Amino acid sequence: MNTQQIILNSRPEGLPTADNFKLQTTELPELKDGEVLVKNLWMSVDPYMRGRMIDRKSYIAPFEIDSPLEGGAIGEVIESKNSTLPVGTKVSNMLGWRNHFVSGEEGLTVVPETGLDLSHFLGIMGMPGMTAWTGLTRITNLKAGETLFVSAASGAVGSVACQLGKLMGARVIGSVGSDEKAEKLKLLGADEVINYKTCGDLNEALAKAAPEGIDVYFENVGGEHLRATLNNMNDYGRVAVCGMISQYNDTTPTPGPENLFQIIVKKLKLEGFIVFDHWSHYGEFAKEMAQWLASGKIQAEQTIYEGLENAPEAFIGLFEGKNKGKMIVKLTS
Amino acid sequence: MNTQQIILNSRPEGLPTADNFKLQTTELPELKDGEVLVKNLWMSVDPYMRGRMIDRKSYIAPFEIDSPLEGGAIGEVIESKNSTLPVGTKVSNMLGWRNHFVSGEEGLTVVPETGLDLSHFLGIMGMPGMTAWTGLTRITNLKAGETLFVSAASGAVGSVACQLGKLMGARVIGSVGSDEKAEKLKLLGADEVINYKTCGDLNEALAKAAPEGIDVYFENVGGEHLRATLNNMNDYGRVAVCGMISQYNDTTPTPGPENLFQIIVKKLKLEGFIVFDHWSHYGEFAKEMAQWLASGKIQAEQTIYEGLENAPEAFIGLFEGKNKGKMIVKLTS
Repeated sequence: MNTQQIILNSRPEGLPTADNFKLQTTELPELKDGEVLVKNLWMSVDPYMRGRMIDRKSYIAPFEIDSPLEGGAIGEVIESKNSTLPVGTKVSNMLGWRNHFVSGEEGLTVVPETGLDLSHFLGIMGMPGMTAWTGLTRITNLKAGETLFVSAASGAVGSVACQLGKLMGARVIGSVGSDEKAEKLKLLGADEVINYKTCGDLNEALAKAAPEGIDVYFENVGGEHLRATLNNMNDYGRVAVCGMISQYNDTTPTPGPENLFQIIVKKLKLEGFIVFDHWSHYGEFAKEMAQWLASGKIQAEQTIYEGLENAPEAFIGLFEGKNKGKMIVKLTS
Repeated sequence: MNTQQIILNSRPEGLPTADNFKLQTTELPELKDGEVLVKNLWMSVDPYMRGRMIDRKSYIAPFEIDSPLEGGAIGEVIESKNSTLPVGTKVSNMLGWRNHFVSGEEGLTVVPETGLDLSHFLGIMGMPGMTAWTGLTRITNLKAGETLFVSAASGAVGSVACQLGKLMGARVIGSVGSDEKAEKLKLLGADEVINYKTCGDLNEALAKAAPEGIDVYFENVGGEHLRATLNNMNDYGRVAVCGMISQYNDTTPTPGPENLFQIIVKKLKLEGFIVFDHWSHYGEFAKEMAQWLASGKIQAEQTIYEGLENAPEAFIGLFEGKNKGKMIVKLTS
């Protein structure tokens, strides 16, 4: 049978454009013994994918020109030559950006029955949610009574980090890029929200929002956000360095902040992390998060685009601030 | 009686000059009960003092114009109205930059009898030696078989860090600013030494010196050194952020490296530290270091200037690379 997939047509320079992507029809191979045919139902677009579009060494191999893109997805087995994965099984996989694929067991994880919408396993119950949890619990060890600052606070990771921070007893400050997002984040419980596009000097805005200083910074943005936060951190503050989205589309490298000396003055600890290194703790995270979701203590925000053909637009939208919470694509064919 | 002291005459802009300092004669008060008169024998000049010459909030209060400078010193009690500090007692103190002073017990620490030259308590047995030890043992937990890179590797801290690194079983790479220092550092046991002034691209020089990557970086310099090291670090590398001497005399802020994203890609941990926070471990450090010195496993390098009047020149020399090992002033009056 035929299916559709999105290939990398050209490497983006700066902000990706529609031309960098191409929708392609391709023929699937016949199932061999042990294989299954999966129809993807949901696929994820994430900022980290921008890095894979650059031809460079990183923690994950770059995408190849003319090859299909990859990423998190949730699908359903619709044909099976594998008795452990019968038709109807829901599987999470890393073969997003396509409607169907043929695969052996490897790379497929059965999604447990939880009563939660399947799409959440790409968001709050999946990689972004686990990233927020890891950054606060395992990297920075946020404590009750501390002040947490989260940048890109209405994003897939940031919106969970803010809510988790409140559950952990912290005072939570978030930065977002629109007043609409600011309002939404306050409804989710953030104590202070800064619209970094309209606040004027971010350094001063942070000083005002955190008069007692920042103990933990969940870094998703980099650049000016990092600079302003270093100036406002307390002694022995910790930074979970998760992302630097402000720089992902840089065509020429942007210099770092000039105040890194604050790391010494304030005896700060900055730690970069990749959530996959912590995946052995997924069970612990998932159990807690499922309970918080079920009890309404945490809300899962999503922005949904429909149709594989709109996946590039959804992806580009990540860098234009078009998502509130997790940006996700519903595959309909 | 009268004594001499050096006051801050004006705040330096850029590299300090002789004009920023003034030698002054001042009258000492009469001893009260409980007080002693101390004659300083040795005083320390250290890069961190440059920061105290700026009028800004930091981990230690700024020096005041027209007030005497302060810093580590070793002196001898020459008059005493305190039975616990009889005449002849050697005391370390933070009242350097002067020949004599009157003080109560507070701020004076009796120097133990070790057979080592007293001056070492301002260097390898004192703050700089303890800084090197703290960075490698308590901050980065350097392990045998790892590759350690030390910047400003012939300085008071760096030369100890290099030797300690070798004793801990690491492969040690150092960067220095002259061929003469490079030769000396190799004699102290460093596996590779880079003269950053003549090596061309530091990034490439590091890649060549550390073909298997850097696991631990002892950061004394900042700027281009940090940039090049981030590019050459291994996954899960650790950085002890101790100093950024390349920036201490900046008149306009120098932007940070543009490759901070490597912190995420390589899952690095950067930790700033101030040795005084770790002073409760001084006994542990001093016991080990005294043994290493006695057995010749570690050598204490010093560059000695004579006379209080030459202390400003010694201090300025720190930023001109004039010291090998600990820069120290012998007080002679």
